[in-house]
Amino acid sequence: MKFCGECGSTVVQIVPEGDNRLRDVCTVCQVVHYQNPKMVVGTLPEWEDKVLLCRRAIAPQYGKWTLPAGFMENNESTLQGALRETEEEAGAQVEILELFTLCNLPHIHQVYLIFRARLLNLNFSPGFESLEVKLFTEAEIPWGEIAFLAVEHTLRQYFEDRRKGGYAFHIADIGRRNALAEDNV
Amino acid sequence: MKFCGECGSTVVQIVPEGDNRLRDVCTVCQVVHYQNPKMVVGTLPEWEDKVLLCRRAIAPQYGKWTLPAGFMENNESTLQGALRETEEEAGAQVEILELFTLCNLPHIHQVYLIFRARLLNLNFSPGFESLEVKLFTEAEIPWGEIAFLAVEHTLRQYFEDRRKGGYAFHIADIGRRNALAEDNV
Repeated sequence: MKFCGECGSTVVQIVPEGDNRLRDVCTVCQVVHYQNPKMVVGTLPEWEDKVLLCRRAIAPQYGKWTLPAGFMENNESTLQGALRETEEEAGAQVEILELFTLCNLPHIHQVYLIFRARLLNLNFSPGFESLEVKLFTEAEIPWGEIAFLAVEHTLRQYFEDRRKGGYAFHIADIGRRNALAEDNV
Repeated sequence: MKFCGECGSTVVQIVPEGDNRLRDVCTVCQVVHYQNPKMVVGTLPEWEDKVLLCRRAIAPQYGKWTLPAGFMENNESTLQGALRETEEEAGAQVEILELFTLCNLPHIHQVYLIFRARLLNLNFSPGFESLEVKLFTEAEIPWGEIAFLAVEHTLRQYFEDRRKGGYAFHIADIGRRNALAEDNV
């Protein structure tokens, strides 16, 4: 951030009085512009022994597979956001079962919240952010072509829990995939 | 937002191409300034049959009681944020036990994540954002003086679970306390 969103003046990075972190502070109106992590909300839709994945039609990770998920919007709950993304990206109607994973990605200031969900019918179809939407058995999952580490982690945890005979809620800390490939989060 | 943080030019609210929501978009450099919900992370510290509350030394809700919690920062996990806020506001060392409540507050664009935690010793003391830090039994909780609805909900859920003999993870949607008192969230 270089300019103040409130008055358009120059912003500097300083530690405000009573704070202990560098913040973007306006040199004229003194407004502090805080920056905080964003939530990515989505679902893991189940149908019999299969799960629903979307192939991305947008950057980053164009052409790679992911669960229907995206940035939570203002004025919605985490569940509403997860349902909205599932409808937008996969054209899929689901019933939310429970929160399955919370993935911390501190290096990119994101927290993923993925809900286990039951696909209600097979009338899904790609939204404009998806090239393709498809059901996969565990053996069919394109592990080398999963767009995001938090999604890969969630899928691996899902099949592990399924083998154990029951699903639990999991919290995971996820680091960089590769320090040279920052886009490949 | 009135001005672009990147170039300082005027911002207008329009629906960008391929989007379906009004966003703040720069009239010159075309950058879209998204606004998303913030996470509030904190703990519910237990000691024998008591829980630790802080009395707020800052606005909003100066003088009211709350659990140690605050806005999650970039470059930290939800757990790290909860531990940091517990140290900053209550000077308290805790061991995190599990995620206890996720409270959606869509009207103020916040999601609370409160972890149940075990207080490790009685060497707590108010940080500069707190007037007082104190242990309360259920009977002693100042219910009429709790700062935030998400905190009140979490405390009520905690004592209800305790009476039932076991703690579960809970998701709650929390609306306005009172349409006339927007500060009193």
